[in-house]
Amino acid sequence: MPTFAFALGLPTLSGSGRCIDCFFPSPLKQPAGALEAAIGEWFTPGEAMLEPEAARAFIEARQPQAAPLLEADRPLIAVLLPEDAPIASTAEAFLKLHLLSHRLALPNTLNLDGIFAHLQTVAWTTEGAVALEELAERQLRARVRGLHFEVLSVDKFPKMANYVVPSGVRIADSSRIRLGAYLGEGTTVMPPGSINFNAGALGPNMVEGRISQGVVLGQESDLGGAASTMGTLAGGGEIVISIGRQCLIGANGGTGIPLGDRCTIEAGLYITAGTRVALIDADGQRQGPVKARELAGRSDLLFIRHSETGEVQCRVNRKAIALNEQLHAHN
Amino acid sequence: MPTFAFALGLPTLSGSGRCIDCFFPSPLKQPAGALEAAIGEWFTPGEAMLEPEAARAFIEARQPQAAPLLEADRPLIAVLLPEDAPIASTAEAFLKLHLLSHRLALPNTLNLDGIFAHLQTVAWTTEGAVALEELAERQLRARVRGLHFEVLSVDKFPKMANYVVPSGVRIADSSRIRLGAYLGEGTTVMPPGSINFNAGALGPNMVEGRISQGVVLGQESDLGGAASTMGTLAGGGEIVISIGRQCLIGANGGTGIPLGDRCTIEAGLYITAGTRVALIDADGQRQGPVKARELAGRSDLLFIRHSETGEVQCRVNRKAIALNEQLHAHN
Amino acid sequence: MPTFAFALGLPTLSGSGRCIDCFFPSPLKQPAGALEAAIGEWFTPGEAMLEPEAARAFIEARQPQAAPLLEADRPLIAVLLPEDAPIASTAEAFLKLHLLSHRLALPNTLNLDGIFAHLQTVAWTTEGAVALEELAERQLRARVRGLHFEVLSVDKFPKMANYVVPSGVRIADSSRIRLGAYLGEGTTVMPPGSINFNAGALGPNMVEGRISQGVVLGQESDLGGAASTMGTLAGGGEIVISIGRQCLIGANGGTGIPLGDRCTIEAGLYITAGTRVALIDADGQRQGPVKARELAGRSDLLFIRHSETGEVQCRVNRKAIALNEQLHAHN
Repeated sequence: MPTFAFALGLPTLSGSGRCIDCFFPSPLKQPAGALEAAIGEWFTPGEAMLEPEAARAFIEARQPQAAPLLEADRPLIAVLLPEDAPIASTAEAFLKLHLLSHRLALPNTLNLDGIFAHLQTVAWTTEGAVALEELAERQLRARVRGLHFEVLSVDKFPKMANYVVPSGVRIADSSRIRLGAYLGEGTTVMPPGSINFNAGALGPNMVEGRISQGVVLGQESDLGGAASTMGTLAGGGEIVISIGRQCLIGANGGTGIPLGDRCTIEAGLYITAGTRVALIDADGQRQGPVKARELAGRSDLLFIRHSETGEVQCRVNRKAIALNEQLHAHN
Repeated sequence: MPTFAFALGLPTLSGSGRCIDCFFPSPLKQPAGALEAAIGEWFTPGEAMLEPEAARAFIEARQPQAAPLLEADRPLIAVLLPEDAPIASTAEAFLKLHLLSHRLALPNTLNLDGIFAHLQTVAWTTEGAVALEELAERQLRARVRGLHFEVLSVDKFPKMANYVVPSGVRIADSSRIRLGAYLGEGTTVMPPGSINFNAGALGPNMVEGRISQGVVLGQESDLGGAASTMGTLAGGGEIVISIGRQCLIGANGGTGIPLGDRCTIEAGLYITAGTRVALIDADGQRQGPVKARELAGRSDLLFIRHSETGEVQCRVNRKAIALNEQLHAHN
Repeated sequence: MPTFAFALGLPTLSGSGRCIDCFFPSPLKQPAGALEAAIGEWFTPGEAMLEPEAARAFIEARQPQAAPLLEADRPLIAVLLPEDAPIASTAEAFLKLHLLSHRLALPNTLNLDGIFAHLQTVAWTTEGAVALEELAERQLRARVRGLHFEVLSVDKFPKMANYVVPSGVRIADSSRIRLGAYLGEGTTVMPPGSINFNAGALGPNMVEGRISQGVVLGQESDLGGAASTMGTLAGGGEIVISIGRQCLIGANGGTGIPLGDRCTIEAGLYITAGTRVALIDADGQRQGPVKARELAGRSDLLFIRHSETGEVQCRVNRKAIALNEQLHAHN
């Protein structure tokens, strides 16, 4: 039987025994050969709770880096997905989010149908995931005991960095990146930046703006401070936004159309699909205007709002984008 | 004697004995009947410190959900406000902020005079509220002991979620919502969103922008990413901003005027009270321009900056606002 | 021998013994007289690890506020810089960042050459600084033990507030201010605000926007919500941005040029160095347009985009800036 994905980890159970969170230290996608055979030998499709001892042979042979799991004083969870089917449980949802953040799958390549239905809204606290029906009493009891109990977020999605920090990234504020975000090598996310699940930056990238669900930022492209990318969940409609290589969306700018490579949107300008844009070619000849959606995905475009006439224009992006190397190495 | 508000809780005292924070698990506003009578029997107007045992009869009879308070090894605080008078102490300020966040009072309905004078700037840390004069030594001593001591904010207002998480909300980053915010059922606050005290969203709402002090967002209205609402504390002047039902302020947009129902401001456009706006009626006839403040509170308006002429226009908002149901159910 | 800077503190060492973080409770810049003599007597130039006992005489005589250091059960670190030379170690980098945040040096006055090379990217967690090569195992072991281990950021720079909270400031979310930021007395940083290292606000200021590396905001100037200042690391090029006194950059606005005193940029307008700006003098006479960089550093300018013509204009800023006193005292 084929194995689409497999992981062994630690669930967080609510007081009533519901699984509200899973941590998978070493998820696998499409394992092959002896590894796949070992999974098939030790585990069955679907999910199962098991005593750590029951996973000893597999872990010692195949995932020695997960050996601390054997010291757990509570059951582990194993999830084996034969195929990339719709999500049918909380544990499956967490496994797919792990695949994205572990860089085992790119955004928009996994079947995430059902994810909202199978993720519960949970309080993410300094004591871990807490079911909402238990929260008020937990807060009160902590106060009574003189302890501090911090509620960091209340969401279906936890923050990525508490599950995995992929190599070569910098994250100014981990609360702004959900589990399920994809951060390629060399991605820096500054304080105003945020990345949703099933969205990401291929790296290297400087992300000071918002990467909405479904949006992917190509290599060497930068999102300026508070720059916006319209997501399919947030009014972006049918068009899935992607941004190619070596693009720059200036600070406080935004796009509602996909961009090809080497495109620039000047700081403060928001291009929506319906924006009427005058085209100015390399010889200064005017055409159009056209709706911005007609320019979707094209390369070498420079979008500005002319500061004397207020006209939104699209010009040939003559400037080679000399990406500040220091910007990517450091900030 | 009438009771405007009452609460029993746990104070945090500074080393010198000042009350710098209060946690009230079950605040009450305008209790009636037997509950009001019980409060009058057991407590006197004003605030008082009392041993937990002294509150046992009241808690067991009237607030069993607060029973863990009886296990405290330090005094409780009781605050009884006969009327909605100006704030006269730190504990009173905390009680009124709790009323707002527990959805017992809408923004702009409580007398908050004196709140700034009675709230001290405090370090909110992973060890709870710490008076600023004690902070440097606490930080140093924690380091010496090899412990981590995290200073999360330095502010008069703590974060709401450490006091109450009202039902049916999602909060991506709790540090952006102050105690005293009002989050109605169905409110989702994404990473760029923030809500000040005495401000809020009636729910359901998607809040990805900033709700300033005094501002209320009506049902089924959305604030796009980094969208701005001018607050009375931040240059908005005399006009209190409110936003009606089914409005949309696009990403990186903003408003300095109140909006009625079914209004849209396009992404990236900031309307201030003084913006001169051309009016285009349903038949395409032009009027005006008028200052935007003359349009304050009107419904069914669509604000755009024409992308060919740079003119700010106000049109009839023909599009029924088909709020993405999924947007409110999930994100 | 002259002493440019000196500090005694606690380092965090990685498992392999690398210094990845230093906490200096009482850094000194250009100490004089008996203090300088005492430093010269007890310490040698450069950095050294020493047992707490070896620092007893100095601390008791010269830095009694640092006495808790004597209780450490591990070595201290002493750093003595004879001159303001390029940074040559992690400890030196931390010392210079401390000088800035302790208000001992203004931004752009220290030699920070080499800082990126000598600061490692570290996970900043609820257990303190953790070397990245140790992070995954630490996370897994904490989960196995049922403990919560929070990764707050992954960055070369930690958050300032965990090292020092200068007097008279308010910080809504400490994760947005790096160590090395300069916050003058009376600085309030609201949720959308952020301040990079070697950047700051002289105070009093309301900071609801982004202060990029190298940028300084003058007294009584305000940065509106999500307002942007271009940094030299982020495409701002050669011009170092500074903003004079009593300026206002409106919400969602931004500047790519330095401003003198009493300048205003209206909400939503982004001025870049290349923006062509029409000049309107006090008598309403037009000149220009000129590129905004020609206006760099001039005072009493009001920048708007005319809402009827879309033209970016620079007018004489007639309005006395009546800074809302309450804004600075409270928010």
